Amino acid sequence: MQTPTLRDVAKAAGVHAATASRALNPQTRRLVNAETARRVLRVAESLGYQPNPIARGLKTAKSRTIGLVIPDLMNPLFPPIVRGIEDVLGSAGYSAFIVNTDNDPDREESQVGSLLSRHVEGLIVATASLEHPLLMRLHAQGVKMVLVNRRTDGLDVPSITPDDTAGIGLAVKHLAGLGHRRIIHLAGPQTTSTGVARSRAFQMVLREHGLDDRSPLVVACEYWSEAEGARVLREVLDWGTEFSAVVAGNDLIALGCYDVFAERGISCPADISVVGFNNMPFLDKMRPPLTTVAVPHHQIGREAARMLLESIEEPDRPPRSVLLPPSLVTRASTAPPREAS
Amino acid sequence: MQTPTLRDVAKAAGVHAATASRALNPQTRRLVNAETARRVLRVAESLGYQPNPIARGLKTAKSRTIGLVIPDLMNPLFPPIVRGIEDVLGSAGYSAFIVNTDNDPDREESQVGSLLSRHVEGLIVATASLEHPLLMRLHAQGVKMVLVNRRTDGLDVPSITPDDTAGIGLAVKHLAGLGHRRIIHLAGPQTTSTGVARSRAFQMVLREHGLDDRSPLVVACEYWSEAEGARVLREVLDWGTEFSAVVAGNDLIALGCYDVFAERGISCPADISVVGFNNMPFLDKMRPPLTTVAVPHHQIGREAARMLLESIEEPDRPPRSVLLPPSLVTRASTAPPREAS
Repeated sequence: MQTPTLRDVAKAAGVHAATASRALNPQTRRLVNAETARRVLRVAESLGYQPNPIARGLKTAKSRTIGLVIPDLMNPLFPPIVRGIEDVLGSAGYSAFIVNTDNDPDREESQVGSLLSRHVEGLIVATASLEHPLLMRLHAQGVKMVLVNRRTDGLDVPSITPDDTAGIGLAVKHLAGLGHRRIIHLAGPQTTSTGVARSRAFQMVLREHGLDDRSPLVVACEYWSEAEGARVLREVLDWGTEFSAVVAGNDLIALGCYDVFAERGISCPADISVVGFNNMPFLDKMRPPLTTVAVPHHQIGREAARMLLESIEEPDRPPRSVLLPPSLVTRASTAPPREAS
Repeated sequence: MQTPTLRDVAKAAGVHAATASRALNPQTRRLVNAETARRVLRVAESLGYQPNPIARGLKTAKSRTIGLVIPDLMNPLFPPIVRGIEDVLGSAGYSAFIVNTDNDPDREESQVGSLLSRHVEGLIVATASLEHPLLMRLHAQGVKMVLVNRRTDGLDVPSITPDDTAGIGLAVKHLAGLGHRRIIHLAGPQTTSTGVARSRAFQMVLREHGLDDRSPLVVACEYWSEAEGARVLREVLDWGTEFSAVVAGNDLIALGCYDVFAERGISCPADISVVGFNNMPFLDKMRPPLTTVAVPHHQIGREAARMLLESIEEPDRPPRSVLLPPSLVTRASTAPPREAS
């Protein structure tokens, strides 16, 4: 006679195999109705069921969870990425543990340690800086990783990012088409690939269009935030810099500009046009609705989850970098400059 | 001579105790620079260091992580709560694993199981429905829990919620003060404590102010979303219902009203005033800026984390329910009705 399996126990107890499994594991027993759990345990004992140590070993090795490392959950850019990741993981029977590092390297290190000690099978990392010793070390130690949104220089792991160069091209072309000649860029932090790629693209595209490229042309923010966008725009205005349009490093920086416009009685778009980057939720309801470069964040999340699952299943597959094409969403924050109208 | 401690190993290897601990644990060794890890292991061996099995047992029992169960990370209400929770956990040396249930009970059950099998010390739950068998079962099994934002009937665990009755009172009083006599309530789902408490409060306060209380007065949405707010307002308008102001169950439902106003050429606040609930981010930049009931979400998160840590440390302390007072933020979506102006 064969040794009884989990399936045999489940059948004899009249429950699903998943329920029997939960009832037999002391960690998860509490999820099962107490009476059902007692019945399953009784049946398991009467059949002489022994948990298969090899199957249990596999079970431990395959935790079917992954860790998701987010720099700032308050940035509305991340929830759609999380949603995309979870959609793909869910259909593959995986789930995600999310940690929020608040852009703090110490916190990131302790939270990643916490994830690894809980046997996640891999990480999806949205915190990448251009230089990122922790990620380099994790990669060297064989931790499976996919980067989303941002990349790290010299780190040979798959990444899914927006095509930042193409996105800035769309923004500048739109403003040039409206007649703007003097455009500035409020760039994101130059410690991040998105900050650097967007500001490099800006300078390049400006010259391609033969636009005014006298300094100051690009002024970098230290954070991707409204408050920092406002701080930097105030500074640029205080220098007496003249310009009729702003390409902001992201939507939050653009919304910081709105605050300064309100403070100083500047009309947008009549006095200054603004273009954002990301197309975060609710921009269509802003005053004025913000013209922005739309990034397919849900798709970025989906692709990242797919790539991580692939690299778990086929560890030898070489890493790829995927750029997703952005598109321009024209709303009411951009218009021809006063001189040209 | 005393047996060497972790601190002795760390000192002899010239590293912090935390680094030595990571290097000695095979699960977390990869977080430490490879050379440092080798040095720590060499020193531990030469000193004859033996990990203390009792300390290790304690370590396993105290995972210093908690699980945070969120219904919908796309709702901008939750990130500030998460931030508040993490602020308190971080200073107590705890971290949070966040799971997003997408309002799906099956998904919630499997994700909670996943958290428990990873030895979280307790749960902060933002998914509570009025009837919630899973939470009742977990509580009966001794899982430590704190509910945030919403409650479950008959579940005797600590909760931190906004004072929904007071919040609706502020909204109605504001509209009545502007001269509105006919106000409707687009309520949230009646399966949630917030949905029910706000709609009950609405009817009560309306009568206290002697306002028109003919039906339809309260129409319930099935989800807390923009799309659902828009769908229900379209329906109410199609019935030919007359009203000059809407109290929305939350900000997303209020923003759904904005979509219908745009579709039908209704001017807000000239034709219809709207009040939201929550004061989610960016409302000050909307067209029009939304008047709303502000809830101290960051503080809700902080209090919830404190309560969970307390119930971990003092399991016998009786549960408390904390209501946090809301306040009214008056912006441009509310004005006197046409008749009264």
